[in-house]
Amino acid sequence: MPLAATIDVSLENLNDIISSAVPDQDRQAVVRTAFYNRLALLAHRMYGGKLQTAPRCGVWGPAWFGVWYTPGVSAVSTAIRDDNAESFELSGRGNTVAVVSDSTRVLGDGDVTPPGGMGVMEGKAFLMKYLGGVDAVPLCVDSRGPDGRNDPDRLIDFVKMVKHSFGAVNLEDISQPNCYRVLDGLRDSCGIPVWHDDAQGTACVTLAGLLNSLELAGKKLSDARIVLLGAGAANSTIARLLIQDGADPSRLSLFDKAGGLHPGRGDLEKDPDSYRQWDLARRTNPDRYAEPAEALKGADILVALSTPGPDVVKRSWVRSMAKKAIVFACANPVPEIWPHAAREEGAFIVATGRGDFPNQVNNSVCFPGILKGALLSRATGISDGMAIRCARSIAAFARDRGIDPTHIMPNMEDEGLFEREAADVADQAAKEGLARSPMSPERVWEKTHVDILAARKMFKDMTDSGAIEPPPQAMLQEALAWALER
Amino acid sequence: MPLAATIDVSLENLNDIISSAVPDQDRQAVVRTAFYNRLALLAHRMYGGKLQTAPRCGVWGPAWFGVWYTPGVSAVSTAIRDDNAESFELSGRGNTVAVVSDSTRVLGDGDVTPPGGMGVMEGKAFLMKYLGGVDAVPLCVDSRGPDGRNDPDRLIDFVKMVKHSFGAVNLEDISQPNCYRVLDGLRDSCGIPVWHDDAQGTACVTLAGLLNSLELAGKKLSDARIVLLGAGAANSTIARLLIQDGADPSRLSLFDKAGGLHPGRGDLEKDPDSYRQWDLARRTNPDRYAEPAEALKGADILVALSTPGPDVVKRSWVRSMAKKAIVFACANPVPEIWPHAAREEGAFIVATGRGDFPNQVNNSVCFPGILKGALLSRATGISDGMAIRCARSIAAFARDRGIDPTHIMPNMEDEGLFEREAADVADQAAKEGLARSPMSPERVWEKTHVDILAARKMFKDMTDSGAIEPPPQAMLQEALAWALER
Repeated sequence: MPLAATIDVSLENLNDIISSAVPDQDRQAVVRTAFYNRLALLAHRMYGGKLQTAPRCGVWGPAWFGVWYTPGVSAVSTAIRDDNAESFELSGRGNTVAVVSDSTRVLGDGDVTPPGGMGVMEGKAFLMKYLGGVDAVPLCVDSRGPDGRNDPDRLIDFVKMVKHSFGAVNLEDISQPNCYRVLDGLRDSCGIPVWHDDAQGTACVTLAGLLNSLELAGKKLSDARIVLLGAGAANSTIARLLIQDGADPSRLSLFDKAGGLHPGRGDLEKDPDSYRQWDLARRTNPDRYAEPAEALKGADILVALSTPGPDVVKRSWVRSMAKKAIVFACANPVPEIWPHAAREEGAFIVATGRGDFPNQVNNSVCFPGILKGALLSRATGISDGMAIRCARSIAAFARDRGIDPTHIMPNMEDEGLFEREAADVADQAAKEGLARSPMSPERVWEKTHVDILAARKMFKDMTDSGAIEPPPQAMLQEALAWALER
Repeated sequence: MPLAATIDVSLENLNDIISSAVPDQDRQAVVRTAFYNRLALLAHRMYGGKLQTAPRCGVWGPAWFGVWYTPGVSAVSTAIRDDNAESFELSGRGNTVAVVSDSTRVLGDGDVTPPGGMGVMEGKAFLMKYLGGVDAVPLCVDSRGPDGRNDPDRLIDFVKMVKHSFGAVNLEDISQPNCYRVLDGLRDSCGIPVWHDDAQGTACVTLAGLLNSLELAGKKLSDARIVLLGAGAANSTIARLLIQDGADPSRLSLFDKAGGLHPGRGDLEKDPDSYRQWDLARRTNPDRYAEPAEALKGADILVALSTPGPDVVKRSWVRSMAKKAIVFACANPVPEIWPHAAREEGAFIVATGRGDFPNQVNNSVCFPGILKGALLSRATGISDGMAIRCARSIAAFARDRGIDPTHIMPNMEDEGLFEREAADVADQAAKEGLARSPMSPERVWEKTHVDILAARKMFKDMTDSGAIEPPPQAMLQEALAWALER
């Protein structure tokens, strides 16, 4: 083990260091993940978390307290009282998103108790600022009722009580079926955009990837035979967006653990928690395929968002698909089928949720832009039309940059991506009559650009000035030593 | 009118400019307030409010997203799940206060609808960062029930749902009697400090001022005859703290609009909304004084927190008080009696809520320090003992600096004030067994000092670097022109 190797603060040489210490490739992946876990624990403790509050304005002398607080602020209170829409202009509300979770399905860790979601929700808020210049506040909510169970109505009530303090709400990591109930209970009645990133965000980026895949395959969405493996929050939303964007429901089928969703699935009809699935079961899969293997014969598209693989999707299934087959295997941390296996069986395009394979399908290329566009246009909500428009915007951005079968998606660090999404989404909101303050796409682009540059400058200035100190080498070494012992 | 005069960005020459344009002193005050109001409206709009989110940690390369988000953050989720107290160390929660209001009694403007409180709550959060290095999030809550009335139980429920995301709660600008009910419903059951600044903060600074006034007058609290004019949230809390700190309840009397509080006040006994007042009525004013004029004869202390004056407190009342009388006339914007009038009638010390007279009694010298101390010691609550200790800390700080009858209080910009408060409050929390992570007073002082310096540096860096631009001269001139027309 090369004890003396210095780990660069960028972590750029981490893989080299691990590779030279650990010959086995599978073990390298284990050590890498263990390193990130250990460093996360050490670094979160050192910095006291990831977020703090900062001023948007200055104190150029003590008299300014009279502007920002009493007596001056009285004019702000009464202006908002007389026209509540002024609260978006006169407070940080207009650029601030509540990241709301009940912490019941936090990444791969499930129910981690109410405060357990703080690290992830703070992380989401951190990304929102860094990527989209959007301010965000993590709110992990205890939605348990007297019986100790998480009650979606309590979460709905909570959001309705707090909504006056925020420009939009990002629902996150809420277990099924509460996640649907909460979104459906808020979406059309909240008066501000409510976004469920696990479902809508995933659907939006998946649709973007599929649009470019179809383009490359020379196929049309309306003709495509589509199979969705998994019928949870993400895939049920993907099905809805696909159908709204032109997919033929009679050529589409979804599969859950009990088999194909179709009009004969009485279990779904009877279960009030499966109302989303039942709605799709009635409209899709007229051939009543019971097994994915049947439906996939001659299919053009497979979107798997089911259980971690490999071998959840069989090689034979992919082999049976149509020419130029499109396979999205998006379970984390391991895709339902390894990309090389899918390609060996003839898949034309393979996408996963992971950054270490080509074609990563990741919500991070979507949520900062769609929320920014919704915020800037003061949208009253985020419609499916806006989500579809965002998907098209993402797809078009990638096409303009150049796509091929291993480059169908843009990257979250591509310059100008979120500006374009925000401009397109705001335009769509205006077209659908959902924008309270319609703004030209050029203006939205410009404002988003300015805010993103300001956010990046803030990160840079704070590290350059020493306000944020770099992690000590000893901490990086401690994380590595710990990881090598796993 | 000297049109060409440039208003300095510090606003330091504002009074001179107004004085030279407006000969009449009373009108100068009107113009000054109008200027602050107008500038507040213009400046809040220009900056888009006062608060934004900022990182506590850096992104030294793209790999760091694996530390701050997935996969690394999973270790944070599970560590907090296994020990919820870790959430204070591994997220920003440990230094973050929720500023919660139902916006029903916002400064002098009353009920301004739920979003109407955003300007003030954001202002409070802004002050918390600037003064105490404490992060804070404004949460204006719609607590109205189905009948359209603000329901204290809904606000209590809201705070209990959101408490896992914050280190402490600052209740603010909630109308009576809901403010008592909410505080009493949360104080002992929330598990984190809940502070009602309008009541407890005011009581704390008032007690501090009285302690130093008694010192200067050579009197003892236990011997003092005390009259409290007004029996609202602030004065009822002041009475409680005074009695706990040694005042003799049989020498203390409170007065509301219906007269003296005493055991014969059946109206208070019958009114469930007056339970706080009834508790005091039973224990104080054994002579059953019905009028302040009676009680004030020979009294040592008058604390008026009633209705804006002048002439709410009569000159003859002050004249009838004991030698070396102490008069706190704290209604805003106009004290119950002008300080010069009180002094002419023999008052030894006069304090008000205003910064333009000597002896301003202002919550701002208290809340950043007491909350910081409670946060750092991971206190489970803020007891009356901690509030009294904070009052003594404030008083002692002023004494060390030197007090005289026109300098009884410290100033919120005095260096070292909040460090001392935080250290003393944390020490008291530990003594009362309320500190989950007891820390030595020296360590609390040092940590508070570091955080305050970091906050000030952040403000300075952001204005120096141009991240926050100064207000344009045209905006200052527009506010002045508008104010001069009032």
